[in-house]
Amino acid sequence: MSDLSNKPCDFVLFGTRGDLARRKLLPALYQLDRAGLLHESTRIVGIARQKLEQDEYQVIVKEALETFLKEPLVEESWNQFSERLFYYGTDFIDPEGYAELASHLNADNVMVNYFATPPSIYGDICRCLKHNNLIKDDTRVVLEKPIGSDFNSSQVINNQVAEFFNENQIYRIDHYLGKETVQNLIALRFANSLFASKWDNRTIDHVQITVAEEVGIEGRWGYFDEAGQMRDMVQNHLLQVLSLVAMDPPVDLKADSIRDEKVKVLKSLRPINQENVYDTTVRGQYTGGYLRGGQVPGYLEEQDANCGSGTETFVAIRVDIDNWRWAGVPFYLRTGKRMPTKHSEIVVHFKNPPHNLYRENYRQLPPNKLTIRLQPHEGVEIQMMNKIPGLDQTTRLQTTKLDLSFSDTFKNERIADAYERLLLECMMGNQALFVRRDEVENAWRWCDSIINAWSNAGEPPKNYPAGTWGPVASVALITRDGRSWEE
Amino acid sequence: MSDLSNKPCDFVLFGTRGDLARRKLLPALYQLDRAGLLHESTRIVGIARQKLEQDEYQVIVKEALETFLKEPLVEESWNQFSERLFYYGTDFIDPEGYAELASHLNADNVMVNYFATPPSIYGDICRCLKHNNLIKDDTRVVLEKPIGSDFNSSQVINNQVAEFFNENQIYRIDHYLGKETVQNLIALRFANSLFASKWDNRTIDHVQITVAEEVGIEGRWGYFDEAGQMRDMVQNHLLQVLSLVAMDPPVDLKADSIRDEKVKVLKSLRPINQENVYDTTVRGQYTGGYLRGGQVPGYLEEQDANCGSGTETFVAIRVDIDNWRWAGVPFYLRTGKRMPTKHSEIVVHFKNPPHNLYRENYRQLPPNKLTIRLQPHEGVEIQMMNKIPGLDQTTRLQTTKLDLSFSDTFKNERIADAYERLLLECMMGNQALFVRRDEVENAWRWCDSIINAWSNAGEPPKNYPAGTWGPVASVALITRDGRSWEE
Repeated sequence: MSDLSNKPCDFVLFGTRGDLARRKLLPALYQLDRAGLLHESTRIVGIARQKLEQDEYQVIVKEALETFLKEPLVEESWNQFSERLFYYGTDFIDPEGYAELASHLNADNVMVNYFATPPSIYGDICRCLKHNNLIKDDTRVVLEKPIGSDFNSSQVINNQVAEFFNENQIYRIDHYLGKETVQNLIALRFANSLFASKWDNRTIDHVQITVAEEVGIEGRWGYFDEAGQMRDMVQNHLLQVLSLVAMDPPVDLKADSIRDEKVKVLKSLRPINQENVYDTTVRGQYTGGYLRGGQVPGYLEEQDANCGSGTETFVAIRVDIDNWRWAGVPFYLRTGKRMPTKHSEIVVHFKNPPHNLYRENYRQLPPNKLTIRLQPHEGVEIQMMNKIPGLDQTTRLQTTKLDLSFSDTFKNERIADAYERLLLECMMGNQALFVRRDEVENAWRWCDSIINAWSNAGEPPKNYPAGTWGPVASVALITRDGRSWEE
Repeated sequence: MSDLSNKPCDFVLFGTRGDLARRKLLPALYQLDRAGLLHESTRIVGIARQKLEQDEYQVIVKEALETFLKEPLVEESWNQFSERLFYYGTDFIDPEGYAELASHLNADNVMVNYFATPPSIYGDICRCLKHNNLIKDDTRVVLEKPIGSDFNSSQVINNQVAEFFNENQIYRIDHYLGKETVQNLIALRFANSLFASKWDNRTIDHVQITVAEEVGIEGRWGYFDEAGQMRDMVQNHLLQVLSLVAMDPPVDLKADSIRDEKVKVLKSLRPINQENVYDTTVRGQYTGGYLRGGQVPGYLEEQDANCGSGTETFVAIRVDIDNWRWAGVPFYLRTGKRMPTKHSEIVVHFKNPPHNLYRENYRQLPPNKLTIRLQPHEGVEIQMMNKIPGLDQTTRLQTTKLDLSFSDTFKNERIADAYERLLLECMMGNQALFVRRDEVENAWRWCDSIINAWSNAGEPPKNYPAGTWGPVASVALITRDGRSWEE
């Protein structure tokens, strides 16, 4: 894999002392280094406000790795990794503070700027980089979510960055795109004729996408309460997964070919507004309840909570995609906090055979289903009908599962964290797993309409006890169509 | 399952001391009894030439069970079973010998006559039964293979039996139809939309059916040398399996609805004659070789062998089915003795996706395959392509198998022997798993043409060493079409 490491980078990490950097980015960089995927000249330049000596920074990074790596830190790997580390202290929004940054960079290296900072200062950082002549044609910028909280605010951020960088230099993170099973989705769809030729409204009845979180607010009530589950999960992760499931076959596997198809899906989402918002969406907010045998507080009883909040912690949506492929095939999305288990999956329900030969015993045959488990236990599963062995006079059928568990099948291979994949991709200059501006915009436009409709209606979210699968109304949303959620 | 046992039968077993009765039929009847599937009034009347006391017969049956059951004989079950047993000694073809048989039968029981005798005397037995007024409207007759050795001789046998029995009283055995996985084939095809809607020449590239035997001649050289692998295996088992794989959806699951569709397939087989026999068939005969590390003799060196024999012990055929569903989709059949392993399976090779998005790395993608394993390890398997987890820059794909092993999945259920199912079915009066006369006739017509073409050409079979997958020519048969045998 030596050809992967032929591009030395200066990986400049803005906000190196923040939570994301410590939990995800530094461990991912360490793992890439350990796997031999970083060029020997690649360096990591951490930036934060404080003035720190280089050795103080080393201690901070080592502590982060020891805390957040899922395996023990290997001393030899750490020694190699630590030699790549540099620290630079500055106020991010002070152009003069960047004056000496250039001296820490290698002019031959591609500069990859990772903004693990509040989006409100993305523009300022760009301006400071420009002011110090640090932006070259091959310089890249990686943007963490959220890119705004609606279409307009996303425009502000995107415009600010676009003043200094072209779209082909901008890498917008959605870490779901780095997950193995999400990447496998493309292979599953386009390298398997069993699915390739059946992926449309003639053969598929409906699709369910569930992203259930077991956690509650985890001490970030203030941030979350501004956002809500719709902005925090649906606008990015769920719509990204949906567009990969629903997209037409791309011309090729190049970044823009794939993103062109994803945008087409987002443009085809049937708008939800005041007319149809109560037929197609359910908002929920958790109350106190029980999870894994322990009592947990309700959303309004969490630390720092404003007890009058009407923010949703659960969303269920029936999405219709108005295009040729999916006419008549609803996609049911569901995501919430304080669900009974952490559990993300895509379930494709195929239509029943045209005629039921087993109608004497089965008024309706259970359908074939393809389940793509994103977490936990990443894998693929096909539900089929088989005859139950035995001497019964009428054929008894049973749903049986053909299972491909990634962790079982590839048990000797470590499954890389999504951020490892994504950091490697941006260092390699491949944008396929990053979100293009028009994707962000179309996703926001569609979500804004729903959020506005909710806001205009002014109804509070429906309660559900922590540890349940959401408000009863979310069950009605799908049973009304004669279907039911996967459990 | 008590409704299964509501038909008391007198199960009259002609040839009760023969190999089939001892190995298969008596153990199957015992198992059915043990499972509570025989009506309490059902009786088993063994018939053979010798005069035996009832208690002598009991000893003989017990010994057969102890020898051939795969589990220890349960004393309690034996006691119950032995009370059903009666013996009647007579020369099968002497009408006067049957005179007292009636007194052993229960006029209220359905009489099921199982002819485990040479087919040459089927007609004689029927005549004797008739002569003694033993044939009623609900009397049944079960015929073991072979029904003739060609179309004409099968006509003779079928006509002889038809003089005394209607087709709906005649149960022709092909024990492959009693296998769980063969029965499951119907459920797999018609209860799963994933396959139901893709089972034709738009989606399937070709089908392979392999029935590989590890055994050689097993001391029956004389019988086998008359028949050969074509008559012994292809005409019945392989064509039965082929017709279940290839048939159109039946109107319903009734016996004649299914058999109507199977006959349509047999009628659609493209004739093979002198014109095309060498392009579409390969005959083989094993020579000495090694199997499981031991040396084994060649066919011409077996006990009782005529060293000039040109009988085939291996056949490979490319079968074309000239109908709308299968135009352009070859079925490759292959069966032989002294293959490396005992191994029967159906493999459906799906076509590749219409366009190869992975052409940079894969000139041709491995196809999706559905494998139905008949033996050993009965089960179903789907081969799919998945992304190999990892951080490689180009997507590496891997064929992975989604596996449903019957023995694993249903490990608490004993898998019934094919004969248990078939004996139960004939006692219940369900003909679905038995071969109808027109099936036998059409199968023979098609096979006769091949056998005649071989005979006219006069070429000896091609040699293959015991312990290999047949003559090299059988590889050429399929590679010529750009395909290859499953290994």
